[in-house]
Amino acid sequence: MRFLDQTKLPAREEIVETSDYRIIAEAIKRLAIRGAPLIGIAAAYGVALAAFHCAEQNAKRINDCLEKVIATLAGTRPTAVNLFWALERQRAVVSRVGADSLPILRQSLVDEAIAIHREDAEMCEAIGKHGSEILPHAATILTHCNAGALATGGIGTALGVIRMAWEMKKLKHVYVDETRPLLQGSRLTAWELQQLDIPYTLLPDNAAAFLMQRGLVSAVVVGADRVAHNGDVANKVGTYGLAIAARHHRIPFYVAAPVSTIDFAITRGSEIPIEQRRSEELTEFNGVSVAPPGVEVYSPAFDVTPHDLITAMITNASVVWNPNAESMAVLKSKLAQASTGR
Amino acid sequence: MRFLDQTKLPAREEIVETSDYRIIAEAIKRLAIRGAPLIGIAAAYGVALAAFHCAEQNAKRINDCLEKVIATLAGTRPTAVNLFWALERQRAVVSRVGADSLPILRQSLVDEAIAIHREDAEMCEAIGKHGSEILPHAATILTHCNAGALATGGIGTALGVIRMAWEMKKLKHVYVDETRPLLQGSRLTAWELQQLDIPYTLLPDNAAAFLMQRGLVSAVVVGADRVAHNGDVANKVGTYGLAIAARHHRIPFYVAAPVSTIDFAITRGSEIPIEQRRSEELTEFNGVSVAPPGVEVYSPAFDVTPHDLITAMITNASVVWNPNAESMAVLKSKLAQASTGR
Repeated sequence: MRFLDQTKLPAREEIVETSDYRIIAEAIKRLAIRGAPLIGIAAAYGVALAAFHCAEQNAKRINDCLEKVIATLAGTRPTAVNLFWALERQRAVVSRVGADSLPILRQSLVDEAIAIHREDAEMCEAIGKHGSEILPHAATILTHCNAGALATGGIGTALGVIRMAWEMKKLKHVYVDETRPLLQGSRLTAWELQQLDIPYTLLPDNAAAFLMQRGLVSAVVVGADRVAHNGDVANKVGTYGLAIAARHHRIPFYVAAPVSTIDFAITRGSEIPIEQRRSEELTEFNGVSVAPPGVEVYSPAFDVTPHDLITAMITNASVVWNPNAESMAVLKSKLAQASTGR
Repeated sequence: MRFLDQTKLPAREEIVETSDYRIIAEAIKRLAIRGAPLIGIAAAYGVALAAFHCAEQNAKRINDCLEKVIATLAGTRPTAVNLFWALERQRAVVSRVGADSLPILRQSLVDEAIAIHREDAEMCEAIGKHGSEILPHAATILTHCNAGALATGGIGTALGVIRMAWEMKKLKHVYVDETRPLLQGSRLTAWELQQLDIPYTLLPDNAAAFLMQRGLVSAVVVGADRVAHNGDVANKVGTYGLAIAARHHRIPFYVAAPVSTIDFAITRGSEIPIEQRRSEELTEFNGVSVAPPGVEVYSPAFDVTPHDLITAMITNASVVWNPNAESMAVLKSKLAQASTGR
């Protein structure tokens, strides 16, 4: 597997090549690989790669070995549901194919990882199409964190919408929150937009409300790390404050996410586990201390935006306006029908 | 004049000693001296020091020389009104005392600077007293930027309130926004609270809304750089977003400021000039680039919070509940009476 080490951007485009799932697990943990959909894809490849290193001789032991791999990958980050969803798909492959023939199992796991990867690219395209259609003309879009090609297997979710709107000549400008503490906006989204030649402006997260007050934002579009059954959304910390500010200014607030990000098993957002990040991410920069020693830090990686602040959920299947338990249930049964029909 | 270079905190407590007003002007510009009240105090001392270096022989030339000094100091930063207010007081001293006797003028300017400094310390005490009285018991206070001893001539405005509440055993905990881009929360407020042994937690600005959602904030207390006649407040960028989030969660939002920060000549907040900061403050850290080269940046130093989001304005004269053009006019006439009575 080859992946771009995103911690090195924008200074260096460093590609890591590995066949060791532990390198992948560690890359997910330290955010070298990040973004809910991409974490799922990388974890799926991780299981497939591990099967090639699995030298056990009987089916039971091969199963145990792969279970250990899945547990390690599942333990990397707690919030994005795509990780668990992708690992569940690989676990289902192991049950279905069985471990009697290791070469067949290996190929099946590789095929499934590639399928997850391809499906994600298709979901991004569909999200981009649905989202760009509902944006106004000459749109000025504010986005937070990075929900672009770097975070997915395709053109991105929120950035997929932005990119398609740009291609349709509906987009005027993008405003990018720098996204503290790890600066995914400054480092990653800015880098992607620059590659795409889409005009953008970078701002500190705390200037977003003032930008709205000045009438410069026609819509907010963000990604998601996990969506609950009632439409509540866990996404990069700062999303919730943006949603409140958007509501205050009567600006539409859109969440763009593939259906793989929806966790129908979770009733509401408050049940989503929220990862806490290390205090050093806030108190140090490149080893230079910017806070007194020993300071206590509150640094959740994500926050939860209640569904009633969300204008629409832009999924690959459809646009869910006013997401709530009812409208999300409609989406759920639509997905169940589609999967039965397949 | 001796001042602490605040850009070096928290790593080093570096004192600068100077009798050159240009060093003071430059220190204000680069935020080595910062905080609306402190800028005013420093500028007043700057004019006094300049008079000692003024070697002109006649009153007209001395006047011209001091006018040049005042213009230089006034040109350092545009938003905080205390700067212009303090310079106006020194200008009034020059008119009143005249420049016929340079020794008398020098002493008068020094006396006025000391008076401005002392009055500010008294105003902080009064603000602290008024503010701590209205806080609930076991208060958990969220603050933004630094409105402490470092920003004033006394115990601070917002931090003065916090400090007095702590002494009255009404305070449980302080939450400190790191305050991008220049990290006045991490570097300065955290440093002050540590010195005072007041328990606090640091957070990224964009986590404040989530903290409120979790019920951890009983009130927000911030300072101000300029208050308009109608009660609109210019303060460090991010204040407006906090005020919206506080309103959304029905959390009281207090602005603590001396009356010297009120600009009755300005009708509403939209007329307050807002300083834009250099893009490098956002795109670089200690010379390391964290964004692609050439990126366009929106980095206002301040934002404007409309008065209707402010629960009360805590001034040294009184607490103005529901600040608006009428309630502020009452404060104005009260101040005019007090000044006539003096």
